[in-house]
Amino acid sequence: MPAVSTSFAELAGELADVGRQCYARGWALGTSGNFSAVVSRDPLRLAITASGVDKGLLSGDQIVEIDDGGKVMAGSGTPSAEASLHLTIVRARRAGAVLHTHSIWSTILSDRTPDEGLAIEGYEMLKGLDGVRSHEHREWLPILDNVQDWRAAAPRVEAVLTAHPDAHGFLIRRHGLYTWGRHLAQAKRQVEILEFLIEVMGRKRGTAWQA
Amino acid sequence: MPAVSTSFAELAGELADVGRQCYARGWALGTSGNFSAVVSRDPLRLAITASGVDKGLLSGDQIVEIDDGGKVMAGSGTPSAEASLHLTIVRARRAGAVLHTHSIWSTILSDRTPDEGLAIEGYEMLKGLDGVRSHEHREWLPILDNVQDWRAAAPRVEAVLTAHPDAHGFLIRRHGLYTWGRHLAQAKRQVEILEFLIEVMGRKRGTAWQA
Amino acid sequence: MPAVSTSFAELAGELADVGRQCYARGWALGTSGNFSAVVSRDPLRLAITASGVDKGLLSGDQIVEIDDGGKVMAGSGTPSAEASLHLTIVRARRAGAVLHTHSIWSTILSDRTPDEGLAIEGYEMLKGLDGVRSHEHREWLPILDNVQDWRAAAPRVEAVLTAHPDAHGFLIRRHGLYTWGRHLAQAKRQVEILEFLIEVMGRKRGTAWQA
Amino acid sequence: MPAVSTSFAELAGELADVGRQCYARGWALGTSGNFSAVVSRDPLRLAITASGVDKGLLSGDQIVEIDDGGKVMAGSGTPSAEASLHLTIVRARRAGAVLHTHSIWSTILSDRTPDEGLAIEGYEMLKGLDGVRSHEHREWLPILDNVQDWRAAAPRVEAVLTAHPDAHGFLIRRHGLYTWGRHLAQAKRQVEILEFLIEVMGRKRGTAWQA
Repeated sequence: MPAVSTSFAELAGELADVGRQCYARGWALGTSGNFSAVVSRDPLRLAITASGVDKGLLSGDQIVEIDDGGKVMAGSGTPSAEASLHLTIVRARRAGAVLHTHSIWSTILSDRTPDEGLAIEGYEMLKGLDGVRSHEHREWLPILDNVQDWRAAAPRVEAVLTAHPDAHGFLIRRHGLYTWGRHLAQAKRQVEILEFLIEVMGRKRGTAWQA
Repeated sequence: MPAVSTSFAELAGELADVGRQCYARGWALGTSGNFSAVVSRDPLRLAITASGVDKGLLSGDQIVEIDDGGKVMAGSGTPSAEASLHLTIVRARRAGAVLHTHSIWSTILSDRTPDEGLAIEGYEMLKGLDGVRSHEHREWLPILDNVQDWRAAAPRVEAVLTAHPDAHGFLIRRHGLYTWGRHLAQAKRQVEILEFLIEVMGRKRGTAWQA
Repeated sequence: MPAVSTSFAELAGELADVGRQCYARGWALGTSGNFSAVVSRDPLRLAITASGVDKGLLSGDQIVEIDDGGKVMAGSGTPSAEASLHLTIVRARRAGAVLHTHSIWSTILSDRTPDEGLAIEGYEMLKGLDGVRSHEHREWLPILDNVQDWRAAAPRVEAVLTAHPDAHGFLIRRHGLYTWGRHLAQAKRQVEILEFLIEVMGRKRGTAWQA
Repeated sequence: MPAVSTSFAELAGELADVGRQCYARGWALGTSGNFSAVVSRDPLRLAITASGVDKGLLSGDQIVEIDDGGKVMAGSGTPSAEASLHLTIVRARRAGAVLHTHSIWSTILSDRTPDEGLAIEGYEMLKGLDGVRSHEHREWLPILDNVQDWRAAAPRVEAVLTAHPDAHGFLIRRHGLYTWGRHLAQAKRQVEILEFLIEVMGRKRGTAWQA
């Protein structure tokens, strides 16, 4: 894992770029979605989108820096209500960046799938996920029920991450996708790959092959 | 509710921005859709898109200012034929901006839903609606039959708004969506959230989960 | 009908704009689609896209001027193989501009509809069509079988236009949509409206309302 | 076939343009997809995208020049893992450019089609393929099973190309589309045409015509 040395201001600008791109694809409409990147590890400092911001107009000054308890250390605004989820992922996965999107297909698949996760298997696109070398890979995306208080639910998220050490992301039911990476570019790549595969699986269910 | 103090020229430019963005997403093709924002409350003055304008080329000089009777007070052009609907909403909801889109999915869902409204419930995205704090919210979007003369139908619209004081928008059958907000940015956020949820509900009906 | 007085160079630039916009929406991928506008009525001169041109890169110098027999009078390149269709429409409808798109949904609907036309009825969006004042309008889009030689088939197209004097466009089976207008802006508006309605009708058939 | 004389630097810039366009349409998300063009025939030199590059940010300096054994001759980076597939196609078809995309619909259709190929027949859009003069053309896109080692599988690809001398492309199961052209502009046109037709065939299966 490379050292994290990018400055807060640089990361904030890069997070805003990624956020606007997710908005353009329809994965972060309204004020939905939130995005973060690690500024320093010790002490832990996270750059994260402020709450209630239009992702189509996202700019670097709408990113705040928080400490490991979620307290704002730099920038103005309230951190996303899901900041504790980002912090939990950063700690559990040693991630350098965490991206959370609300797409049409992740909303539908997390709603309709009766199981506690979604299996994605046998697609070439899986090779874009960190460490995956073969299309024969089977990715299991856990699905968590949605809650109001993510601070209180953090231990449950941590338990899911521990139980599924190979998962590259997870879904929250009727809510959206979380994924992460060693750095922001890798997390951006993974959000595109997982959203692509989720859309493939959703659209496949709308085709009538015998017709 | 904040005081409304933005000038007509500023609001006209901002309405044109929002209109072109709706066009880009396919929610206001051709000359469809119309958009308004309150310039002053007392006396009531509304900035509203002129009729018959290409929303992909929308500019501030295609917005007119009207009084509470729909008479043009500034700018050139005929106000949208649905101006009386905008005025009714502004009065009934104390809204600062009203947005009306014609999307593929709002057209289909308003057509096919047999009931007098569409229930949307349990989605995280609902929390982007004004005053909604939990994904367990149940949004009821009333569906009105389409008519030719909205001036004559204004009392009917007002009655629906009164009967459903918590609704954040309504659908007109085979026509499209109306939503509003305290100010333009909030209305823009709500149009994105409602169009997203309507698309989710429409696409969900196209998936065969057992297949 | 307004006099046609715009110069060939101006029209060529405007046609290129419209063509690139159709390409961006996926209605003229590859070299598909062709677009024309009347330069003068007497003698008849038509500005029309040259054959084999990438619509995503379309520029004014890829538009040629032809006479009423399809002979190139200005510009370089071969006129579209469907130039005779454009000339037939311009004569039969006194159109000032003709637009032809190849969209996903017009391809599917023209293929699957067993009848000799597609009825579109009861949608607000219909009011964007020239002369339509009510959503209760019933638009009948004739569907013609595809052929190789449109010069030879011109009388058949003319007969369809005569038999359906109120049609604002027609479909060619497994091929695409033709529409027109008094001038280019109106034709552009109509292509957006008809493509929108065709997509609504296609997607509606993919929804399972009872599910 | 025209002589190939464009310089490596020029071709690299043009390949980057085409790659970003494919990314924008959702056909090369994440680091998926790879693109090449012939710099010289004798000795054979190919400009090809480096491995692991974000196609949304693709620039000319992320293209490398390789020889007929896949060895890097200019530029920095590792050539795509599928370089041997590109070289095989260039030799077997005398192609000047090869484009490989990962779209939603090519992934779904290559997965669900039980046969060893996909027949596409009777569409006007087919006339955009090199040498096709009539919409009555029947295109057969062979479907190959996906493998890990394309260098070892090259003879199998060559055998498929020999067995289907008229094919303008092929699919790899759950992976994507390969197509090619005499030069880059023609290959770009063909990727748009084949992706369009594959999407038509996929969406057609999601419509219920009797409903």
